[in-house]
Amino acid sequence: MPDRTDKTAVKTAHDLGIMRGAPVPPTGRVPFQDWDRAPWNRWTFQHIREILPTTEVWRGSGPVWQLPGAPRNLDDLSFAADSGDETTIAQWLNDDFTDGFIVLHRGSIVFERYMNGMTERSLHLSQSMAKSVTGTVAGILVGQGLLDPDCPVTEYLPELKRTAWNGATLRHVLDMTSGVRYVEDYEALDSDMAITDMAAGWKPRRGRAPTCIWDQIMTLKTRERVHGASFEYKTIEADVLAYCMIRATGTGLAELFSRELWAPMGAEESACMTVDSTGYPLADAGFNATLRDYARFGLVHLNGGIGNGRRILPLEWVEDTRKGDPALFNAPYTDTLPNGAYRNTFWVEDHRRQAYMAIGVFGQFIYVDPEEELVAVKLSSWPEFLSPPRARTFLNAVHGIAARLGGTT
Amino acid sequence: MPDRTDKTAVKTAHDLGIMRGAPVPPTGRVPFQDWDRAPWNRWTFQHIREILPTTEVWRGSGPVWQLPGAPRNLDDLSFAADSGDETTIAQWLNDDFTDGFIVLHRGSIVFERYMNGMTERSLHLSQSMAKSVTGTVAGILVGQGLLDPDCPVTEYLPELKRTAWNGATLRHVLDMTSGVRYVEDYEALDSDMAITDMAAGWKPRRGRAPTCIWDQIMTLKTRERVHGASFEYKTIEADVLAYCMIRATGTGLAELFSRELWAPMGAEESACMTVDSTGYPLADAGFNATLRDYARFGLVHLNGGIGNGRRILPLEWVEDTRKGDPALFNAPYTDTLPNGAYRNTFWVEDHRRQAYMAIGVFGQFIYVDPEEELVAVKLSSWPEFLSPPRARTFLNAVHGIAARLGGTT
Repeated sequence: MPDRTDKTAVKTAHDLGIMRGAPVPPTGRVPFQDWDRAPWNRWTFQHIREILPTTEVWRGSGPVWQLPGAPRNLDDLSFAADSGDETTIAQWLNDDFTDGFIVLHRGSIVFERYMNGMTERSLHLSQSMAKSVTGTVAGILVGQGLLDPDCPVTEYLPELKRTAWNGATLRHVLDMTSGVRYVEDYEALDSDMAITDMAAGWKPRRGRAPTCIWDQIMTLKTRERVHGASFEYKTIEADVLAYCMIRATGTGLAELFSRELWAPMGAEESACMTVDSTGYPLADAGFNATLRDYARFGLVHLNGGIGNGRRILPLEWVEDTRKGDPALFNAPYTDTLPNGAYRNTFWVEDHRRQAYMAIGVFGQFIYVDPEEELVAVKLSSWPEFLSPPRARTFLNAVHGIAARLGGTT
Repeated sequence: MPDRTDKTAVKTAHDLGIMRGAPVPPTGRVPFQDWDRAPWNRWTFQHIREILPTTEVWRGSGPVWQLPGAPRNLDDLSFAADSGDETTIAQWLNDDFTDGFIVLHRGSIVFERYMNGMTERSLHLSQSMAKSVTGTVAGILVGQGLLDPDCPVTEYLPELKRTAWNGATLRHVLDMTSGVRYVEDYEALDSDMAITDMAAGWKPRRGRAPTCIWDQIMTLKTRERVHGASFEYKTIEADVLAYCMIRATGTGLAELFSRELWAPMGAEESACMTVDSTGYPLADAGFNATLRDYARFGLVHLNGGIGNGRRILPLEWVEDTRKGDPALFNAPYTDTLPNGAYRNTFWVEDHRRQAYMAIGVFGQFIYVDPEEELVAVKLSSWPEFLSPPRARTFLNAVHGIAARLGGTT
């Protein structure tokens, strides 16, 4: 029987020779059409700006929000993987294609690991955690009275009357409960998701695919259920939300993220976002930031909207985010979160508890647990888009860490 | 007769509606294949990272090299344009598609203008001024004993024995006097320069064009004259130089630029470089920096290699750069610089004087005049790749400014 936890099983970008050498030999060159797939994502997720056009989300010129350190040795902490086998934090991080992992307890960094060439300054792709950054800035704008969740999206974007979003509210878009038909299939070459990849400039364009995200939004004219009837994960709703934000403020998305969140939060580094051919920053997946800055973002949520010594996000928005409706939640999402919900672009872990998460494909997580006073961020380059076993193992790990940290204080 | 100096004649990117609006209407979207052409370059030269993949040239975490201010009103200074007509600095800056213009005299900023939406933080494309940045870092490495101008390039890159660079020295590459055939035609679709644009990822690939700069270097096998016989401007020699630097140091180019120049110089902002599909930063044209940081770079040269209170570049290298050989210089370069020369990736204005320049197509200039204690940087988005009349007018302008500044001190 092969040793499932053999440390040599998971190769780093360096081991694999990806983009290594001068010149890089042909076998080490990232093929553009497969940049997000294994094994190439071991390198690309930390080097997005070298693969795609991007725009800066400026950190501003203010001081960094300093995070105190209170190191704890969690490497040897053992917990049960989803398979039932016992593992340790160190072993799991290695096995799970980890690029970075950080745990904050009561506002202090207790554990921080960089792997696979990642450094404190590396900007790592968020994948769909970008939706939660977008939704957080939306919450800030709601607090400023610039957006209203109960408003029809067509009030911000009258053009959407010609699409299936006609009649939907911003609330539906925030919770992904609009009835718009959008096929979120990551593997099919002709799914709506595949078209989004092309429209975003993430993949080479084929045929008559739209050249930008806006143009794709305008093609989505089929409503397959009543708005608000149920949660159905639809990547493009984050972009509809983003366009509402841009239109409501008259401000570009990267500038908005900087002004309302990244600068006031005292981020350590400027973030960046991939842009489509019209310069639109991809709100649904194109965000990139450092491990610690994702942790600061989580901490703003943990602290009820306060970060860097100031209120950034309204408390009501944070409280509302913790109250997703489990009745709208269903398969296949219940595979990973049997008692979960989706609210304000976040995944509620268990509607009977307060923890919620940002999640991105290929293993990205920002976990916020107010009851345990814990934030955990994991950045990865999994071989799989989705893996319920890996996701459940992540949850087991953070539960184990929370128990350890809570038990000794 | 139309008013040649009509301020309305030169439109800004904003006037033109380029990349403006949410969504950007189709007429405002930059067509990728023409991004560097008029009128699109009015916008793209300040937004390269939103168009192309890039890598960061980190400024480091040290303090900024502060440049004192000693403002002078030069707007109304009149001088003769190349046409013979009198104009003023303000009028010329407007007429000449200026994005930024800065003048330093005796180390102080005496004049600084941002136009066409450019700001103090905007990174502007250098075009071929990148070669002079590359050549400057080469000079630093020569000072460290890591590179030797008299060495055959094949000592660093043995693969070049299979190319027309066999037998050429680093000196030939630094001065663009190798005998390698390389057709520097900006308009032809099949010139070597057009292939470089495709290999660099700057233009859509056609046919069997190489997918990276290294692969194009390896295709250049025709020697059309004896190495060292005469200067012939060949963009790709800067890339051969860059690969020698990478190989000699075992360090990537962006990291090398940061470590040896941008960080010690105390740059205000991180710069960036476009990268090809193998992650190679385009040393021949892909550099982007702020107006003031280009000025700091000029000031290092003006000060004989000292900047930010430390020696950055050997004095000998600066002195050598001022001594280009006019006997190797010829048409068409003499159209703009009748007594010019080319040395160490810089253009010597007049071999009887000390001033030298970095020059990039579409109106980029860093002018260093030790005798007048003056640095001038002009960043532009001309409609033309090359314009001897515009270039001569630039020189008239800086001569007029030097006379004004020198005459009153």
